[in-house]
Amino acid sequence: MDENKATATPVREAQGGASSSNMMWGGRFSTSPDAVMEAINASIDVDRRLAAQDIAGSRAHSDMLAACGIITAADRDAIHAGLAQVEREIADGTFAYSTALEDIHMNIEARLKEIVGAPAGRLHTARSRNDQVAVDFRLFVREACDRTAAQILKLQRALLAQAEAHADTVMPGFTHLQSAQPVTFGHHMLAYVNMLDRDRARFIDARARMNRCPLGAAALAGTSFPIDRHMTAKALGFDGPTRNSLDSVSARDFALEFLSAAAICAVNLSRLAEEIVIWMTPQFGFVKLSDRWTTGSSIMPQKKNPDAAELVRGKSGRVIGQLNTLLVLMKGLPLTYSKDMQEDKEALFDAADTIELCLEATAGMVADMTPVAEKMAAAAGAGFATATDLADWLVRVLGLPFRDAHHVTGRIVALAEAKGCDLAALALADLQGVEPRITADIFEVLTVESSVASRTSFGGTAPQNVRAEIAHWRDVLAREGV
Amino acid sequence: MDENKATATPVREAQGGASSSNMMWGGRFSTSPDAVMEAINASIDVDRRLAAQDIAGSRAHSDMLAACGIITAADRDAIHAGLAQVEREIADGTFAYSTALEDIHMNIEARLKEIVGAPAGRLHTARSRNDQVAVDFRLFVREACDRTAAQILKLQRALLAQAEAHADTVMPGFTHLQSAQPVTFGHHMLAYVNMLDRDRARFIDARARMNRCPLGAAALAGTSFPIDRHMTAKALGFDGPTRNSLDSVSARDFALEFLSAAAICAVNLSRLAEEIVIWMTPQFGFVKLSDRWTTGSSIMPQKKNPDAAELVRGKSGRVIGQLNTLLVLMKGLPLTYSKDMQEDKEALFDAADTIELCLEATAGMVADMTPVAEKMAAAAGAGFATATDLADWLVRVLGLPFRDAHHVTGRIVALAEAKGCDLAALALADLQGVEPRITADIFEVLTVESSVASRTSFGGTAPQNVRAEIAHWRDVLAREGV
Amino acid sequence: MDENKATATPVREAQGGASSSNMMWGGRFSTSPDAVMEAINASIDVDRRLAAQDIAGSRAHSDMLAACGIITAADRDAIHAGLAQVEREIADGTFAYSTALEDIHMNIEARLKEIVGAPAGRLHTARSRNDQVAVDFRLFVREACDRTAAQILKLQRALLAQAEAHADTVMPGFTHLQSAQPVTFGHHMLAYVNMLDRDRARFIDARARMNRCPLGAAALAGTSFPIDRHMTAKALGFDGPTRNSLDSVSARDFALEFLSAAAICAVNLSRLAEEIVIWMTPQFGFVKLSDRWTTGSSIMPQKKNPDAAELVRGKSGRVIGQLNTLLVLMKGLPLTYSKDMQEDKEALFDAADTIELCLEATAGMVADMTPVAEKMAAAAGAGFATATDLADWLVRVLGLPFRDAHHVTGRIVALAEAKGCDLAALALADLQGVEPRITADIFEVLTVESSVASRTSFGGTAPQNVRAEIAHWRDVLAREGV
Amino acid sequence: MDENKATATPVREAQGGASSSNMMWGGRFSTSPDAVMEAINASIDVDRRLAAQDIAGSRAHSDMLAACGIITAADRDAIHAGLAQVEREIADGTFAYSTALEDIHMNIEARLKEIVGAPAGRLHTARSRNDQVAVDFRLFVREACDRTAAQILKLQRALLAQAEAHADTVMPGFTHLQSAQPVTFGHHMLAYVNMLDRDRARFIDARARMNRCPLGAAALAGTSFPIDRHMTAKALGFDGPTRNSLDSVSARDFALEFLSAAAICAVNLSRLAEEIVIWMTPQFGFVKLSDRWTTGSSIMPQKKNPDAAELVRGKSGRVIGQLNTLLVLMKGLPLTYSKDMQEDKEALFDAADTIELCLEATAGMVADMTPVAEKMAAAAGAGFATATDLADWLVRVLGLPFRDAHHVTGRIVALAEAKGCDLAALALADLQGVEPRITADIFEVLTVESSVASRTSFGGTAPQNVRAEIAHWRDVLAREGV
Repeated sequence: MDENKATATPVREAQGGASSSNMMWGGRFSTSPDAVMEAINASIDVDRRLAAQDIAGSRAHSDMLAACGIITAADRDAIHAGLAQVEREIADGTFAYSTALEDIHMNIEARLKEIVGAPAGRLHTARSRNDQVAVDFRLFVREACDRTAAQILKLQRALLAQAEAHADTVMPGFTHLQSAQPVTFGHHMLAYVNMLDRDRARFIDARARMNRCPLGAAALAGTSFPIDRHMTAKALGFDGPTRNSLDSVSARDFALEFLSAAAICAVNLSRLAEEIVIWMTPQFGFVKLSDRWTTGSSIMPQKKNPDAAELVRGKSGRVIGQLNTLLVLMKGLPLTYSKDMQEDKEALFDAADTIELCLEATAGMVADMTPVAEKMAAAAGAGFATATDLADWLVRVLGLPFRDAHHVTGRIVALAEAKGCDLAALALADLQGVEPRITADIFEVLTVESSVASRTSFGGTAPQNVRAEIAHWRDVLAREGV
Repeated sequence: MDENKATATPVREAQGGASSSNMMWGGRFSTSPDAVMEAINASIDVDRRLAAQDIAGSRAHSDMLAACGIITAADRDAIHAGLAQVEREIADGTFAYSTALEDIHMNIEARLKEIVGAPAGRLHTARSRNDQVAVDFRLFVREACDRTAAQILKLQRALLAQAEAHADTVMPGFTHLQSAQPVTFGHHMLAYVNMLDRDRARFIDARARMNRCPLGAAALAGTSFPIDRHMTAKALGFDGPTRNSLDSVSARDFALEFLSAAAICAVNLSRLAEEIVIWMTPQFGFVKLSDRWTTGSSIMPQKKNPDAAELVRGKSGRVIGQLNTLLVLMKGLPLTYSKDMQEDKEALFDAADTIELCLEATAGMVADMTPVAEKMAAAAGAGFATATDLADWLVRVLGLPFRDAHHVTGRIVALAEAKGCDLAALALADLQGVEPRITADIFEVLTVESSVASRTSFGGTAPQNVRAEIAHWRDVLAREGV
Repeated sequence: MDENKATATPVREAQGGASSSNMMWGGRFSTSPDAVMEAINASIDVDRRLAAQDIAGSRAHSDMLAACGIITAADRDAIHAGLAQVEREIADGTFAYSTALEDIHMNIEARLKEIVGAPAGRLHTARSRNDQVAVDFRLFVREACDRTAAQILKLQRALLAQAEAHADTVMPGFTHLQSAQPVTFGHHMLAYVNMLDRDRARFIDARARMNRCPLGAAALAGTSFPIDRHMTAKALGFDGPTRNSLDSVSARDFALEFLSAAAICAVNLSRLAEEIVIWMTPQFGFVKLSDRWTTGSSIMPQKKNPDAAELVRGKSGRVIGQLNTLLVLMKGLPLTYSKDMQEDKEALFDAADTIELCLEATAGMVADMTPVAEKMAAAAGAGFATATDLADWLVRVLGLPFRDAHHVTGRIVALAEAKGCDLAALALADLQGVEPRITADIFEVLTVESSVASRTSFGGTAPQNVRAEIAHWRDVLAREGV
Repeated sequence: MDENKATATPVREAQGGASSSNMMWGGRFSTSPDAVMEAINASIDVDRRLAAQDIAGSRAHSDMLAACGIITAADRDAIHAGLAQVEREIADGTFAYSTALEDIHMNIEARLKEIVGAPAGRLHTARSRNDQVAVDFRLFVREACDRTAAQILKLQRALLAQAEAHADTVMPGFTHLQSAQPVTFGHHMLAYVNMLDRDRARFIDARARMNRCPLGAAALAGTSFPIDRHMTAKALGFDGPTRNSLDSVSARDFALEFLSAAAICAVNLSRLAEEIVIWMTPQFGFVKLSDRWTTGSSIMPQKKNPDAAELVRGKSGRVIGQLNTLLVLMKGLPLTYSKDMQEDKEALFDAADTIELCLEATAGMVADMTPVAEKMAAAAGAGFATATDLADWLVRVLGLPFRDAHHVTGRIVALAEAKGCDLAALALADLQGVEPRITADIFEVLTVESSVASRTSFGGTAPQNVRAEIAHWRDVLAREGV
């Protein structure tokens, strides 16, 4: 790609293909480019995905050129008609992509020339491949933000449905993958709703920040043609034009920001995926997934391999890798365009596809997931899980200082351990043997259900809170039309 | 760190230190922890940087506990007095940190206990180390956002000053590190002002998103004490409390978002640093840096090693590495707290320090930098750099189609090449020999100065645009108080 | 992929495709897998590249089964005939890949079944998809090591040719991209020969370490069939079988080691690419590249965009990204096979293709490169580049202590600077004015040529050394048959 | 760092410190370096760890200088005496490090000057800071290879001890974290012995590859002094000198290779750590760890947080991050030394410390770990885990084709499922109802123990194999003196 080259008129590769991409540069290049050079240089296999964006950009640009009197209305109409035909050919699968023409921009331009002749050459007035590729790519990333945010909403909805169905279903809350305190499955689902909401907000912020149109920056310096950049920006749905032509063709931070948001989201998904893998073991048995999201063995019926969850977990590596790729790529690049930057698209496309697929698969799994309440309840109650509740009761009701409350609790737990029973199964007399002021009221906090119900602080796991939160999030999603 | 452990009363390491961290867990652990375990487990050497945040959190928490009637006013006052003394001891350097007490939270708590006795034990009511560390770390990252955004403003101001001084100073605009079209040094500086403004906005957005207070999530499930999380949130400058207790202690996406913003910013800085390194070569000679920002040789006076620029360039690797560290760390972690997460702080602290130092050094270099106008002007004019201007004139004035305009331009350039002169040095007759309709007006676009002046499209490099943009950015910075 | 599933007989997708991958698992799965699940789960689009390895593995396995009396010779012959046909169909492009059959292993197995019937089912005796994919992938990575090492040799040869042609061509040796001391272009080329030799050795070491055959590990535990793993290992060119069945199906460190070697090599190539980009600027002008390896502008003849070099530089990001992807992927995976590991192949394939392409393109550029001796010589002589030689002469000949020698040198340089001339252009009287003991012999070290010639320490830049090194490396390459 | 600067004589910072690092450059720099510059530039806080290497290098260099007649024996003796004193001061903690003197090399050199006067200045003959830092750093990395390899041996020994104690202890072999086939705990331990052996081999290969001495490359071009590089190489334990002076001061691939090996090893450790975390859950309960390697709760006695395992898992992110840091740092750096490279040491030191600590902690945990045989045996037997054994028996004994064997097995499993019993608990008549040719011999393969015992293929899990492998590895370790 080059700012000056782009103003030249490309010649379309002949059928059977003896011509070469050097023909685009007006014959100055005497040697046919080496096959290796073509292999390393051509991007058409990747950037053909930008065809729709390229056509949209050309429509907006030609409309503006005509409105500003830089080209005639007739030229504009011819260009529009030609672009419509190109669009159809691409949709039909009849468009013949040429590697010798390097990229999607030259491919479309060359075909447009064949269809409409001279006006095609005028389309490139006050434009270069540098700002053209910048606007195309930005449009793609903007749409990827929208698609990803929409997929997140779908996953949030699936999580909310589980939360609603299981606002009272108790399970262990874990630290270090060890049961710590009882919570509800609904509360756990809502944790992910919150995490994903920040993920969604990151894509929304990224979109807002990138939503400035680079078209009209031309090669890198702007142009002397009396163009109206605000008009093209508006036509393409941007909030306005970018403010600096060098920055317009140099910047890829919008892609880096998308990749960062995607990597963070992928890591969040990997956490849920890990939980699903663990919950699906026979040892945990906290949830079931149907055959839609697992694979198995023809002769070991219990084996339910959580393939989809594992793939979601593993694909976080892929998104992180693509973020890393683009960070390394951009490191130390002088302004403005360097050819290195051609590599930006493949990394972005792959990460965008991956995060969408992971979100969709996770939403599918969450919707499909059946919690096994009895397994979770049993686990929630094991291990003197309400010991903290007991200690808190001693502080709250008897006014014991924390240190003393913990001492008393430790002795009671030791008693239960010795008797081989749960805390709730101890006799009042046993408890009073340790601390005489304990009353029968204490039993209200010793069961898993009462423990959970008592956590009514804002954000706490009490079912009443969970239900209030579900209502809150239903409102949020409703405002988004989900 | 553990939610239950945190409610226990730590015993402070004796002077000379025979005691161990296991004393914190009430003597249940019979074996003295191995030295290796202590080495891998203790975080005090890192998290001591959270002392101020920890004390602020404890102040807010104790105020709230008293306001809600959970502790007495007298306890609150004792706690406040004790915290003030701890604060003084840390400031004085007389605070004795203990590795056996593992982390800053336990260190402060143990010392508070020594100072104020029983009330120290009540401070931990309705709190655990899990939400305590979450709020401390979040406060730190929030402040890092503020500090980084402020440093960016300083660098933007330095760039603006250069832009103002060099709104008319021509230099080559590069693609592929080859001169493409003339631009001005001021315009180039403004490209970075724009890039950095998006960097700054990312830190601002990250700050806004993370600005919810996790305090009160307790171990992971919330609490049964009648706490007021809105009060502590407000006291600590948060927009409100977090909505889900599990998420509150599990989430580190706020740190990942800071690291992402820092990595993108570091990459932007690496681009300017690379340019400075190249500009400082004798071959380019575009700028001079004083001895403040270079090192040299006692016997080779011309040697001006741009050490600071190289370090800024290299340190981008460090910030990218720390982002990567935390992404890998969090990948696949089940909810809620896992000990892996202890590693989050060192990565964040280092990246925050690094990005601040890089911004400060870059601002220093930019302020110090003296452009060498004659070297840049000579380079800007070399290589028929106004060939595009010539072609554009043919299109604009003579109405030639692009293809023809390029053909004519190519022939004129070949003529100049053959004569060994610049385009502007050709005689009108020479030009008319190629295209008879060319008039003397064409010479107005053939000089570097006229080329630059003609790029008046919004965002273009024309000095009048550059001046308008400087005014715009002066306003932006003024609104930020810079 | 699953160890048990793999022993089942797959049913090939009907033409037109109503059947599904679940048919492979014997009908236990009642629900048709979701399109999303198929999208996330199928790997055939990626792992079809393993077809040759899969067929080779099956040949070796069936030979061994027959030799050990586990299948009949007739079965073996039928399997071989069937595999030959599959091979032909793949080569012809007539093989019908099925996404429903998930991966290349099931695709080939299903087709084999269609061709040969029952014996196809016996091929899978004492084998599972787990060890099958492990051996296929290992064979691929081993071949990638060989291909990459061969490409490195080609690049070394191209560098040696340049070194030979320019053993005497002086250029500046840089530190901080500032001229420090004169060297020769040949010596600079040899630096890369050395770097690449270590790169090559890394691939050779990686190959040797991975060259153990996992076939026969079966699902994960080994098998009760009386197989001969040494026989299959030998048949497939391995040094022997792996020693532990769990490790055999779990390990991907061989792929990580390949990716590490590729990333380090890519970084080395990015350094040469950066140098080419800088050398190609008009400001440096140290080398010329032909149109084969550059792109340009139809109207700016001097513009020679070093696209290939920039792409090699940028693609280092890609290889680093893929290494990162697989490191993240494998982090925290319990033994043995997890579905996450399916993602290993795409990362590896892409990195292997990229490093090969980068090596090939770099070899092409190096062969094509024409050093501009006069530009390099002028730069080598500028900036009192022989000041160190002067100081060394004072130490060596006059026996001055270093401190004094530096003081004297500094004064002489200042004198030359004041006179606006080079050190070699000073009069002997001028030199003696600073240090009377200086004799005319000193002029022998003040020219660039003499400076270079004097660096005869082992590894130094003296042309005689460079020539000796070229002879050494010619021998090394000759031993490799290059 | 600079090649010429290094030959100057540094002036040691005065007590109380008004002087500056610029004094090192002979007063050419008029401005005191900015505090920011000092902060970004100084490396003494990091590279002080190279003191021992620096002194060793200076000893070897001065011995060689004297042997070659470049300095006198008296100077050499003075230098040796001075270095011995510096060494003592550093060991005593009385050495006064100066930030103004930037790095450890200048700190030692300045102190040496104070102690021995003029001879100190001659030490730097035919040496520069560039080759000095290269040799120091290489020595450090070489020692880190040795230390890491030794730690790996210790961990292998701990794993072997567990393998020996549990060669017969059955546990489930997992795929997808679902039980697939029974294996033994000893076999599982041996999988890690194998993985770690490749890790160890990578450090050994890296060491061998880097073991060339760069000393004598001087600034970058070699030297005109008649030095003997083979002598210094030998004195410092290298296999010989490096072959190219530019490469000698530019290369950091030896550090990248160490970091790669460390990252792969860290990922391997993270897998065992993840398994320990999962095994330690009450749900699995496969192993117990003592209080030495866990933390707990004062009031929840069952809670055993596997902190050390989690930290080992998490720290893999740190090592991967440091590898990434150095890859990014080196990307695109032209030859030879650039200041960016100063950042190499902190990344390497941290990764080296981390991998050593992780290995040591893992060895401690493995030694401490108590497998709970009954829990593992129960899990190994659940889920018709010997279904594959049954199918294999049908193939092996009855000669059924695989397809038929699987069909029969599926029906028998369904029968057991319906009866709610294990396969081994079915009556022979039940089995014959499905396939009449089945004999009572089949029961020999239906128990977990017989399944495990039957996997006698090389590398299989049969206890006899495990014992043979233990003997093999004992030999390997014995040869290493462990």
